[in-house]
Amino acid sequence: MINIRKAISDDVAIILELIKGLADYEKMTNDVVATEEKLYSTLFENKFAHVFIAEWNGKPVGFSLYFFNYSTFLAKPGIWLEDLYVMPEFRGKGIGKALLKNLAKVALENNCGRLEWAVLDWNTPAIDFYKSLGAKPMDDWTTFRVTDDALESLSQK
Amino acid sequence: MINIRKAISDDVAIILELIKGLADYEKMTNDVVATEEKLYSTLFENKFAHVFIAEWNGKPVGFSLYFFNYSTFLAKPGIWLEDLYVMPEFRGKGIGKALLKNLAKVALENNCGRLEWAVLDWNTPAIDFYKSLGAKPMDDWTTFRVTDDALESLSQK
Repeated sequence: MINIRKAISDDVAIILELIKGLADYEKMTNDVVATEEKLYSTLFENKFAHVFIAEWNGKPVGFSLYFFNYSTFLAKPGIWLEDLYVMPEFRGKGIGKALLKNLAKVALENNCGRLEWAVLDWNTPAIDFYKSLGAKPMDDWTTFRVTDDALESLSQK
Repeated sequence: MINIRKAISDDVAIILELIKGLADYEKMTNDVVATEEKLYSTLFENKFAHVFIAEWNGKPVGFSLYFFNYSTFLAKPGIWLEDLYVMPEFRGKGIGKALLKNLAKVALENNCGRLEWAVLDWNTPAIDFYKSLGAKPMDDWTTFRVTDDALESLSQK
C-alpha cells in the first residue's frame, strides 16, 4: 500500500502543500516563501535538489527532499536529507521509515559514505525514531548561518 | 598579497595537504581516508563540490570547499561551506575572512538565500570570529548521521 516514487514536475502543487505541512509542524509557517513557480524553477528546471513522493493507496501523503553533500575526509559524496514529512493522519504506517530506507538505498547506489539530516531539538518523537534506525547525533557541532543583510555585508568586507 | 582563485585538478596534492591540516586541528586525523586519486575523481571528474585556494604571496596556504544546498521554505539554493582552513603560520592576515567574503559573493551571484557551515563546539576562536561576521548559530538543531553498517541495515529494513 506504500509506494515511493520520484517526483515529476506535475507534483509541484503537492510538494508545496507538504512543505507547508512540515513548516506548520515545525512552527515555522511564516518562514515559507516558496511558491509552485519557484519550486518548478529550482527543482525541475535547475535541479538543486531531488524529491521522492510517498503514496498511500495511490494518494501522495509524504515526501523526502535531498541533495548530495560531500565529505573531504572521505573524499566521497553523501546524502543530505533536507526534508522528510508524512501527513499527520498517515503516520504510524511505516511511511517515514520507507522514505528513509529508500534514501539509504540511493546513498549506497551512489557510493555515498553518509546519510544525514537535521532535527529540531524539541522533536523527541522524531529523535527517538531516528536513533532506533541507527542514526547518531553529531552533538559537538553547531551550524552557523549568514543571511540577508549580513550576507550582503560579508560580501563587501 | 592575498589571492583567492578557483582550484584546478593540478591542486589535488595541496588540497589533500590542507584537508590533513584541518583534520589535525580538529583532532580527527584518523578519520581522513581521502587520497589524491579520490579527490581528483570526486572534485574534478565528478563535481560533487567546488574548491577555492587562498594564496599568500603566490603560495597556497588555505582553502574553502563548498557545494550548493537547498531550502524548501525559500525554494532557493544556498551554499554549504564544508571546509575552511588556513595554515597556522598564515593566520591573522585576513585570509579566512577573504575566503568567506569570496563565498558570500558566490552566494549572491547564484541567488542563494544562505551561506552556512558547521563548527565544533570547543572551537571558541572560530565561533567568535564567525559571530563577528554576522553569522548566527542554529542552536536548536542537531544533525543526525547514518553510516557504514547502520546505512546498509537501514537500506534493507
